[in-house]
Amino acid sequence: MVSSSNTPATRKPVAQLYYELLTLGDELLLGLTANGHLTFIGAQLGRRGVTLRRNITITDDADVIVAQFRESWARADVVITTGGLGPTCDDRTRECLAEVLGQKLVHDASVEASIVARFARLGRTMTPNNLKQALVFERGEVLVNANGTAPGLWVEQDGKILVMLPGPPNELQPMFIEQIVPRLAARGLLTEKEAYVQLRTSGVGESALETRLQPIFDRFGAALSIAFCAHSGHVDCRVSSPGGQLDDLQLQVIAAQCAKLLGEDFVCYGHDSLAKVCADMLRAQEKTLACAETASGGLLANSFTDISGASKFFAGGTVCYSNESKMQLLDVPECLLAQHGAVSAENAVAMATGAAEKLGADYAVAITGFAGPCGGTQENPVGTFFLALHAPHGVWSKKLSYPGPRTTVKVRAVNAALDWLRRELVRAASGASAISPRGEAMQ
Amino acid sequence: MVSSSNTPATRKPVAQLYYELLTLGDELLLGLTANGHLTFIGAQLGRRGVTLRRNITITDDADVIVAQFRESWARADVVITTGGLGPTCDDRTRECLAEVLGQKLVHDASVEASIVARFARLGRTMTPNNLKQALVFERGEVLVNANGTAPGLWVEQDGKILVMLPGPPNELQPMFIEQIVPRLAARGLLTEKEAYVQLRTSGVGESALETRLQPIFDRFGAALSIAFCAHSGHVDCRVSSPGGQLDDLQLQVIAAQCAKLLGEDFVCYGHDSLAKVCADMLRAQEKTLACAETASGGLLANSFTDISGASKFFAGGTVCYSNESKMQLLDVPECLLAQHGAVSAENAVAMATGAAEKLGADYAVAITGFAGPCGGTQENPVGTFFLALHAPHGVWSKKLSYPGPRTTVKVRAVNAALDWLRRELVRAASGASAISPRGEAMQ
Repeated sequence: MVSSSNTPATRKPVAQLYYELLTLGDELLLGLTANGHLTFIGAQLGRRGVTLRRNITITDDADVIVAQFRESWARADVVITTGGLGPTCDDRTRECLAEVLGQKLVHDASVEASIVARFARLGRTMTPNNLKQALVFERGEVLVNANGTAPGLWVEQDGKILVMLPGPPNELQPMFIEQIVPRLAARGLLTEKEAYVQLRTSGVGESALETRLQPIFDRFGAALSIAFCAHSGHVDCRVSSPGGQLDDLQLQVIAAQCAKLLGEDFVCYGHDSLAKVCADMLRAQEKTLACAETASGGLLANSFTDISGASKFFAGGTVCYSNESKMQLLDVPECLLAQHGAVSAENAVAMATGAAEKLGADYAVAITGFAGPCGGTQENPVGTFFLALHAPHGVWSKKLSYPGPRTTVKVRAVNAALDWLRRELVRAASGASAISPRGEAMQ
Repeated sequence: MVSSSNTPATRKPVAQLYYELLTLGDELLLGLTANGHLTFIGAQLGRRGVTLRRNITITDDADVIVAQFRESWARADVVITTGGLGPTCDDRTRECLAEVLGQKLVHDASVEASIVARFARLGRTMTPNNLKQALVFERGEVLVNANGTAPGLWVEQDGKILVMLPGPPNELQPMFIEQIVPRLAARGLLTEKEAYVQLRTSGVGESALETRLQPIFDRFGAALSIAFCAHSGHVDCRVSSPGGQLDDLQLQVIAAQCAKLLGEDFVCYGHDSLAKVCADMLRAQEKTLACAETASGGLLANSFTDISGASKFFAGGTVCYSNESKMQLLDVPECLLAQHGAVSAENAVAMATGAAEKLGADYAVAITGFAGPCGGTQENPVGTFFLALHAPHGVWSKKLSYPGPRTTVKVRAVNAALDWLRRELVRAASGASAISPRGEAMQ
């Protein structure tokens, strides 16, 4: 292993380091699998003061890999590769990069032993092609893979760093957090803290958000860098000071001014989901929540149950496609369904109330609607949703309408429900009169 | 507009065309949003005979955009860019690409009118920064954006094609399908059909799959190209013939031989999810399904309700976190929960049976477990799940154990449940005795 005194740590501040990510695999270019590595590694580096400069996705072809790696290695301080370390014939990363770096591949007995042990533990037969994964660089470190067969590799050469990671996310992610981040930090190639402040907002479009916040930004001119990013259900605004003229405390004060100006449209600092923000308020207020869904089909319940410790606030939920299930599980009266139909404000309210009562919850959110592409009526075409919010002090409903395919409108209806609940919980926490300006009182 | 006689269509076969995708935006490099454009555009092109050669993600910085686009334009036949067309100060794609191509940006009155109309329709105030989006290339075509303010742009110049698309997926995706694909096809830059056959499998690892299928592949030597891609819950195997020695019919025959060899481990040709495959069999067999979940929290129900027309086979589901909710919604006996606990084979079976009875379904799948990171017992630590499958002819349960974070183990438990149901439905369709070798009979 080359000594770490050769690394870029001795030469550049973290913000000027050039990190490049090479994601390898035809399956990415053919859209057969999402490039989650960019999202994961980009976020991990971003939180530690590094903005990844470039991500390049290329095919498994050996000539293309060799040419691209040669270019990336010439340009970057740290090159991270993902994929192509597996046992099958289309896994060529190891051989190609060894060629460019002039390194030999050598057999590693301990890697072979751990591959053999892993197959034995899982009770599976090891096919011989797996042994290819025991080939490692002659000058480099092996990164143990606790969740798979292909180890990662860490190489320091030419004053640069090469990190080679296996493709499966459940193997790559723990390896990156447990083995790569500490190595980079030890060499001064990462900072310890967030280098920007992010405000998460909802209910305001990107352009209106910029216009509302502009008076604050104007006071700081070019010292402040602003970036907006619209997501499904929320818009993020990131403030940073790339030149370093503003320190962390100043950035936090600016972000707090933005949050105050935005009022209820401000969701949180950082990256928490709407569901997580609701969950934190429910726990703080010692209240419980139930869900009753038709058209959103479990997506609302799932967004809450993704949160660790959900059983502390989440009583449960139902997905009631048939009218019988609404009557059986939630005590929705048959006459109500006959008179108003399942896609109605009345049914939404009955489902929310039924869920709160059956599951003994303080709050309940109901979503009913036509997700499409079939169904719908003249009055309530595909894309129409009725939400209801049952709270300790009353129950309200609102009607919404979304264009788009089935999975998109499900997400939008769930986001609307989460944001409505969030605003009610904000008001409950502040002791304000909890009548939602965007819903209609029903009872 | 430049005449289409200048386009690469006149020079190369589709498989040799060089398509490059530039995805622009700091939010991608910082991992704040996933690069869904690569997945979507890669899949759209892949199904029409084109393997995207390269995807490059770079920052919003003007100098970087100009340098990268100059390089990409020199190399590729078709360059597609996404993002940076919006109204805010970090949207710079239009200006940078115009500079490289030596084009002027001109104001388009009809684009401005449609932006103004869109804000009026949504009842929102239009801030002046939106008008920047009415600037278009002097030589090029405007692509109407039905779902947002920033139009796309189509440019034919230097015998190449440039496509500029807005960043939000709900704007980009319909624009790509409705406006870009037909334009590319009209110029002979796409084929009309799939250029490969994909087999989806489950229950077999990547290396074992290669070993099992190798005898078939060996017969065709270098004429056949094979690629494997492991996903959560399934492994895909793609067979193609890049040199064209094998025609479509031959590829289909090879794929059919692989499917036959794999037996029940073969899921489907193409891209259908496990839930979709189950749904198709349930509809064909005129059977209905119910779900009962604890630890998977609605994810199983959601995977079925993502499917159009789910109401034809999906009766409904419950998410029962508390013991009270299991008793209230599914008639699970209190004494059973007291004796065996909620994370037990007995409770899984009681939940499945309760769901089938309450919701009047032929099949019911139950998932209970400890998703973690808290909870668990010595006998059943975090990651332990019990599944139960209620079928017309009996009910079975099985115990599984997964390592990993909460959202990962939820997905794995749901995939296991889906695959179990799939195998039972395959056997029911074939009239085989339906006793699952991987589950234990309970009743």
